[in-house]
This record gives sequence, C-alpha cells and structure tokens, in this order.
Amino acid sequence: MFKKLGIVVRRKNFKSIDHDALDTMIAYLSDQRVDLFSEMDADYKNDHIIELSHEDFISNADLIVVFGGDGTLLNAARHYIEANIPLLGINMGNLGFLTDIKINNFEKSISEILNGDYKTEERFLISAIFDGKTSYGLNEVVIHSGSYAQLMTYRLSINEKVVYEQKSDGLIVATPTGSTAYALSAGGPIIHPELNVWTILPMLPQSLSSRPFVISSSDNVEVIVFDGPQNDAKICIDGQEDISFPFDTKVKISKMNKLLKLVHPKSNDFFEACREKLGWSLNITKR
Amino acid sequence: MFKKLGIVVRRKNFKSIDHDALDTMIAYLSDQRVDLFSEMDADYKNDHIIELSHEDFISNADLIVVFGGDGTLLNAARHYIEANIPLLGINMGNLGFLTDIKINNFEKSISEILNGDYKTEERFLISAIFDGKTSYGLNEVVIHSGSYAQLMTYRLSINEKVVYEQKSDGLIVATPTGSTAYALSAGGPIIHPELNVWTILPMLPQSLSSRPFVISSSDNVEVIVFDGPQNDAKICIDGQEDISFPFDTKVKISKMNKLLKLVHPKSNDFFEACREKLGWSLNITKR
Amino acid sequence: MFKKLGIVVRRKNFKSIDHDALDTMIAYLSDQRVDLFSEMDADYKNDHIIELSHEDFISNADLIVVFGGDGTLLNAARHYIEANIPLLGINMGNLGFLTDIKINNFEKSISEILNGDYKTEERFLISAIFDGKTSYGLNEVVIHSGSYAQLMTYRLSINEKVVYEQKSDGLIVATPTGSTAYALSAGGPIIHPELNVWTILPMLPQSLSSRPFVISSSDNVEVIVFDGPQNDAKICIDGQEDISFPFDTKVKISKMNKLLKLVHPKSNDFFEACREKLGWSLNITKR
Amino acid sequence: MFKKLGIVVRRKNFKSIDHDALDTMIAYLSDQRVDLFSEMDADYKNDHIIELSHEDFISNADLIVVFGGDGTLLNAARHYIEANIPLLGINMGNLGFLTDIKINNFEKSISEILNGDYKTEERFLISAIFDGKTSYGLNEVVIHSGSYAQLMTYRLSINEKVVYEQKSDGLIVATPTGSTAYALSAGGPIIHPELNVWTILPMLPQSLSSRPFVISSSDNVEVIVFDGPQNDAKICIDGQEDISFPFDTKVKISKMNKLLKLVHPKSNDFFEACREKLGWSLNITKR
Repeated sequence: MFKKLGIVVRRKNFKSIDHDALDTMIAYLSDQRVDLFSEMDADYKNDHIIELSHEDFISNADLIVVFGGDGTLLNAARHYIEANIPLLGINMGNLGFLTDIKINNFEKSISEILNGDYKTEERFLISAIFDGKTSYGLNEVVIHSGSYAQLMTYRLSINEKVVYEQKSDGLIVATPTGSTAYALSAGGPIIHPELNVWTILPMLPQSLSSRPFVISSSDNVEVIVFDGPQNDAKICIDGQEDISFPFDTKVKISKMNKLLKLVHPKSNDFFEACREKLGWSLNITKR
Repeated sequence: MFKKLGIVVRRKNFKSIDHDALDTMIAYLSDQRVDLFSEMDADYKNDHIIELSHEDFISNADLIVVFGGDGTLLNAARHYIEANIPLLGINMGNLGFLTDIKINNFEKSISEILNGDYKTEERFLISAIFDGKTSYGLNEVVIHSGSYAQLMTYRLSINEKVVYEQKSDGLIVATPTGSTAYALSAGGPIIHPELNVWTILPMLPQSLSSRPFVISSSDNVEVIVFDGPQNDAKICIDGQEDISFPFDTKVKISKMNKLLKLVHPKSNDFFEACREKLGWSLNITKR
Repeated sequence: MFKKLGIVVRRKNFKSIDHDALDTMIAYLSDQRVDLFSEMDADYKNDHIIELSHEDFISNADLIVVFGGDGTLLNAARHYIEANIPLLGINMGNLGFLTDIKINNFEKSISEILNGDYKTEERFLISAIFDGKTSYGLNEVVIHSGSYAQLMTYRLSINEKVVYEQKSDGLIVATPTGSTAYALSAGGPIIHPELNVWTILPMLPQSLSSRPFVISSSDNVEVIVFDGPQNDAKICIDGQEDISFPFDTKVKISKMNKLLKLVHPKSNDFFEACREKLGWSLNITKR
Repeated sequence: MFKKLGIVVRRKNFKSIDHDALDTMIAYLSDQRVDLFSEMDADYKNDHIIELSHEDFISNADLIVVFGGDGTLLNAARHYIEANIPLLGINMGNLGFLTDIKINNFEKSISEILNGDYKTEERFLISAIFDGKTSYGLNEVVIHSGSYAQLMTYRLSINEKVVYEQKSDGLIVATPTGSTAYALSAGGPIIHPELNVWTILPMLPQSLSSRPFVISSSDNVEVIVFDGPQNDAKICIDGQEDISFPFDTKVKISKMNKLLKLVHPKSNDFFEACREKLGWSLNITKR
C-alpha cells in the first residue's frame, strides 16, 4: 500500500480553473494519511507537500503521482526511470492513454488505489544505440532525413537479415505505447499495450508497396542511413530534440532492460481511452 | 526424418510447362528412398505414387508435400488439419508466404529437408462459433453485410468489454498468416508469423477515426451484427463460401486448439517473401 | 422567387420531437404566402399542404423542399430528376453535405431564400450503361463481385485506353457529391462539389500500388469484369439494390446530360459541412 | 516545326553506357537538319552542339530537349520558365511522368516530333507569396515544422474562409504534376495532369479524420503557422532548399500566370506512365 507519494505537476499548460482543482486534490490526498513530497524546484508548491532534493525524493517515494496529460507523464517517466518507482497519472483534461484518472473520478479512484485496490502495468522501453551514444524512450525512435520532401536512403535489418532498402523522409520504430502517438499519424495500427511487439513503418515512403509491419520486441532492429538531403541523418526519440549522426552509422534498436510501471484503477480499459481520445463511437447503445 | 510423403497437387491452374516440372520433381522424390502416396481421387497420377484411401493416407504419411501456391496449401491444411501431419509447400510459380520452395531450388531444398535439415513452424487457427455452428480458418474471419455500399451496424467486444459500435461493410479478424492476405488489402499491418496476435479491422468503415488494431490471440472477440441491408448477416472464413446468420447472433471468435505445422528449409525468411510477393525492394545493394 | 413549394418528408427515421418541429416549420412556410403541395401518397400530411398527383406535383412546384438527411434528399433527387425542379434540403438532424439548413436556422434561411437571396448549385449525374440497361446516380457507381474476400478480375479503360487490369472486391467511380460518401470509406479524397471530375478507386485491391485517381468527368470510363466468385458481377448505384450482369459485359460510365439543382442559403460553405460531419476541427480560435 | 533545339543534359547520374547512347542520339539529331545549342557551362559537350550564352540560348531555341529523368526536366523547367520555350524530355532510364520518350523509341519519336506530329501539354505553376518573397514550383508547396514528431499548429483558409486548424508535421499543396511525386507518398490521390485542381493534404496529421481534398486551382489558399517546435516555420517548393518564415505569417498560395509547355509524342498516355512507374499491372492480357 502506497504511503509516500511523490507529486509531479506540470502547470505550464494549466488553465486557471485547474489550479483550484489541483489544490482540492492535494488537500484530499493529504487527508488520506499519506506523506506528500515534491522536488525542490517544482513549479507547484503547496503547504501539504514537503520539498525534497531529487535524491531524497526518489529514495522516499513509493508512488509518483503525476498531474497532467500523457506528455507530462512521459516526461516524468524518463526523469524517474532509474528509480524504479511506479507512476500514477491524473489527467487534468481529457482521458489519456497513460493518465486514466480524470478529475471527476479522482477521489473514488485514489482512495481505491491507496487501499490497495489497483492494477499494475509494465511498459517496456525502447533503446537506440548509435555513434557511441545510447538513448531510450517509451513511444518511438524516429530516424529521419532532417528535411522534408527530399528522401533519405536507408537499409533496415532485423536479426541481422536485411528487410529492405528504401527511400523515405524517415522511419519509425514504435512501442505499443507509441502506437497511439506519432506512429498512428503515420498510418500505423493501434497495438494493445500488453503486447511485446514493435511496429516499424516508414514516413512518406516513395514506394507504394510499403506497409507498416509488426515484429516481436525481442527482435534486434538495425538501421543504416546511406545518404540524404543533409550532411548527416537525425534521430528523435519521443519527440525530444534531434540528435545528428553520420551516414553509414549502424543504429541498433532493441528492447531496454528497464520498465515503466504504471498504476491504474482496476476499471482501467484501453479501449475506453481509444473511444474517448480517438473519437471512436462514444455512445454504446443499450441492447 | 520424413520417409512417407503424402503428395497433394492442384493442377487446375497449372500451365503445360508445370506438368513436366511436376513429373521431374516426383521422379526426384522417388529416387530419395521415400514412399509417395496420394489420395484415390487425386487429379494427378504418376507411377511413383501409390493411391490410398483418405484414411490410409493420413495414417501413413509423416509429411504432406503440397505442389501449388498459398491457396492450395491453405486448402490442404484445412483438409488434413485433424491428422496433425506437417505440411511442406512447393511453389509452382512465384514465392509464396506459405509455400517457400521454388521449382529451381527444389532438389537442394528437398534433400536437405529429407536429411533432417529443416525448421518447423506452427501457425494457430482461428475459430468462429455462431448460431450453433463452428468454423475455423488460417487466414481470417470476415463478417459482412452481404452487400456493398449499404452499411451494417455491429458491436465489437473483447473479453466481454465493448470496444465500439460501428457501421461498415464488414469486419475482419485476421491471424498473422492472414495479415498478408485479405487484411492487407483492407489496410491492415503485416504481422510476423511468429506472433500470437490478431488484427481487427473494419472494411470501408463510415467512421474516419477507425484504425486497424492488434490484440493478443488469447483474447476472446465477440461480434454482434444488429442490422444491415439484407435479412441476415454473413460470415466468410478464408474466402470460402458465405454462411448466413441472423441479426443479434453472438459470433464468438477465438484461438483454436489446433495448429498448422509447416516445414521450411532452414533458410526460410519471412521478409524475403515480403520482398518478392509485395514488391518491396528486390535489389539489396552490396555495401 | 419561389412561390409553389413541393414538400417531401421522409418520416421513417424521425424521432417524436421532429414531428413537432416539422409542424412548426410547415406552419411557418404557410405564413410566407407560398403554396405548399405534396404527393398523394406522402407519409406526412398537414392541413397547410395540398395533396396532388405526381404529375400535378411536378408541373406545379417551382422548388422542392426536402425535410430529412442527405439520404432523403438523394432519394428525392432521383424521384424528381426528370422534372428539372431545384431542391432545397432541411436537415432534421446534423448538418448534411446536401441538406445544409438546420432546424434552428430554418426561419432565417427560408425567408432569405423565398426573398430571392440564395445561390443555386448544379451537381451532375453519373450514368452506367450495361447489358441493355441504363442506371444513373448522384454519388457513385460501384461494380463488385457480389461476395467478399474472393476477388473479381476486371479491366478499366478510360477514353478507349486501358488503364489497368486488377483484382479486388470491386471498383468505385464517384462523383464529387459521392466523394464524401462511400468513396471516402474506401480511402478516396474529398472533392469540392464544384469540380467536374470523377474519382476512381478499387475496394480492397490485391495490389499494394493501387491508388485513388481523379479524372475529368468528360472522360468515358469502361469496366469489364472477366471473372469473379459468383456466376456474374453486380452493379450498385447510390447504395440502391444490386443489379447483376454477365461477365465480359462492357459497363460504360459517363456524365449524364441531367443535373441536380440545389438551392442553398448564400452562407453555404462546403468546408463547414466537412468540419461538422467529418469531425474536422470544430473550434476555430480567434486570432 | 522545331528547327533550333536547345540541349540540356544532366550527366551527374548517368552511367557509362548512357554516355554512348547520348552521343548516338545527338548525332541522330544533328542529321535531322536542325541546329543544336547548349549553354556555355553545360556539362556535356559535343561537336554537333554550338555553345551559346544563356541569353542567346533562350532567344534562339524553339524547343528545349532535356536528357535525363523527371527531376532533370523539373530543374530545366524552372531555369527556362521565363523564356516560354516548350520542353521535350528524353528519359535515360525508366519512363517518367514528364519525360516520356525512352532511348529505344528515340529515333521514331523525335522524327515524328520534328515533322510536326506531336501534342503540346500545358502544366500550370503554383506560387507561394510570403514574408515579402515569391517562390514557385511545378510539383508542390510544402509548409512544415522544420522538425519531426513535434507538431506545428496552423490554420488553412480557402478563398478567405477558414477550412480548419490542425496539428501536423506539415501541409502539402500539390499540383496535378506533383500528385505523382511527394503528395503520393503522403497518401494523396493521383490527379490527371489535364485537370485544373490542387490537392491539399497534411503530413502525419494528429487528427484521424483528416483526409486529402481536391479544390479548383483558381482558388486562393492561405496558410498561417501559429507555432511549432522551432523558432519559425519552413517552406519547401519542389524539394528545393527550405526557406524559413516567422510564425503568424500569411503564406498565400495560388496559380501562377506562367505555364510549363511540354511536347509529347502523340502516343503519350498518362496511365501508361502510371503502370510503368507505379507498378500498376504491366501485362494487359489480350482478350
């Protein structure tokens, strides 16, 4: 049972009304006989929350409660991934895929969770090793030309076997978590988060026969960019900043031996999030 | 090591040149000190092949060698699924996804396989239980309206939870084997055959936010068609004939406890078949 | 200026609340010093409306006012196409592409229109000539196999030149009006209604390189179905019932020398209908 | 009848064998009693070709013959657009959409054309006016974020009416010529070159209901980028270099009052180029 909650708030995008909602939720939490911490430089302060150094924060918290949307939770996940503490997302707006407690369900959901009535889900991370560097993410690795409408030429291999050589603006290797993010915009399928698979799909490929495909996340993926419109190629993970690497570099993409642990209410339902976030049929008729 | 080969030939689509190729291959097989059988009513006869009743055929053969394309192999798989005998496909034309030995590799591949140098792959079957009937297939279950451009309304549930209600011409639930068949035409992703997943995707959905999605093949899928342009709805498995069922029937789709066993040369490579059959980059440059 | 209004109502799908709304709208119309007619067998009757025979209806009405959705308007358009009377659509539910007056704008829009403050739009019809028959429609001609997941083989020619031979479930030739209907589900582009073009696109094509394409509506299209899963092929226009025709029949598709005339408020905006009906960004920010 | 041919060669991508083919073609041309010119700094020289200054070249040539692929012809078109001289493309490799004379048809095609047996096609240009600059192209205007997987927010208006506000990596406005280039990779339809339309389509849009749409090329398009991942937005025309412009700039896109004139053999067939370049069914059966 969770007793020491690390609080993460990203207020940048909050509207004024959320401020009050947040105060109310923090007050409710503090009534539940749990300790509340935040990091020193947090941009939300509240008398109920004790400020700690990063080291003390991660050595004390047994659950990190993130107030914000999926993007905020992804940032927190990256920030605390080494600490191996489970995360719980409170969505300040619409339902998210990762942040599935909404303000109006907050009190019911949080008291259930604090009473031990919850489920834990693990989402694996994806890492890219290239040019002496390692980067990792939760959503996707994007390898791209650095420009648009001018193609890069690359070779994709899986488990040492060449899959194809192609020309496109770029290539996405997405986790199930990422399948509802950028990969979805590129025409990829929605992957249930429990599956241990990756989706590989080019962005704006020249070839008309190119299609997204799904492989085991135990497979090792290798991408080599041979040439493109700029002097080097770029890698972008989870929409963070681009990192350049030389042509002919082997970029090795594989499952990371780290997991994001998410805490959910027992009623958590992936397809409910699809319906709400993707505009799937909201009204299920009574029949 | 395989010693007793059941021979299955579908000559209907063969051109004259294949006839000779077939005779040559059968002669080669008969030189390998193996017994060759066919069923009594087979449409290809050859002095090297002993004709047996269906019962004797399945009780004797330890490998079924299918000469034809993927469609022929699918038919043979359905015909012999209860006998639990592995199948080997010899492609008389272009490389297939299931039939990956081509005529010009036949002698080398077959002697390796008969010497025990092969790999076995298992592909699970999908079953649909509806209206007191059970049907099963290797590629996909298609539930459709029986007409075109006039929508049916249906509800999709997974593990007893409603996913959505939608209007479309129909719905496909495809195995990985089927992901390179009809589901690919409907915009589905290519799924590596080793994965235990299903792709679910509507055909010509009215909703623009509809997307293919991928779930575990351990999940139970249920589809109820509420209404449509005809007096009932239809189910079509692996492109076999349509079976009608009344509106409001629960169609339960799940993994079957039967497997198709395929024998392949050790060099078998799924992505090579993708390149050849789907027109992916055929020429991998030497770099 | 319109003085004699033919009233068409399709009440089948109306909910009880629409009945009152309809009475109110008819009462408002009858106050505008115009005559109101309906056909004898109309399923909505009202003291303000004079019942006429079909012949008297079409010889008297100078505007046909259709209460319903786009489907109702399409039906009315087919019914009265020979009479060459403009139509005006009153949408009883959400905004339609063809029926762009909503209940809550009714009085303002109708009084403007009756005062001569409106615009007229012409939409051309598409005809299919085959097997001694001629059919026409406003949305699309669909040629299909009569079944699913079992391909038909056909040849498409434009202006006597072969475009391709292909295998698919079927082929759509859509007008701009139809581009937001069935063709949109099949992956076609949205075509502005003022353009004199057709979109041609296969349904679930086997070939991965197949793409929708757009040609002039002055072009002559010819489709020949060579074979398919049934004993003949089918044609379906505007989602009406299937008509069978033998294999190897030349189906000639061309622009018809008839036009549907639609009356709109001057504020009519095609992209507003896209936003509302297709779920495009509804909230345009003030900037 | 063409008597003075300006010769444009882009040898950069030629293989050694093309060099000889080129010499042979130039020799054939010089035998046809026509004058051959090239510009001073041309990278192909030949005794049959008189070198002229740019000014003399454009004041003398009545036909510009381009040896290369579609990209080379596009470059030449941009270079000589002010001179209003028709262009003829000789494809040194596979058939192009713009360069439809292949080496093995060269002598027959060129003698027909020099004898006056040809057709002329006009393709309109697209211009973008923004931030005090004007650029134009033949294929497409791409407005993009300058990065990937981090969305830009923009508003699209047509003829002063807002169409939508959206988030995506970028937006393409393509001519019919461009419909078989980058816009095709982004999922756009193929547009017959004779049509006076534009296709507008987002690249990797966040919204699932986004679809390509087609409008008249007489329409005025305006795009305003409000924000994005970099400090400004980018515009890229025909795959040339990116030009930056500040957020909130009005980018006005419209038809240009200049035309590219292409000369073709009378047998020129757009769909033949589709079949060859896009991998559409190459073998049309005799029936």
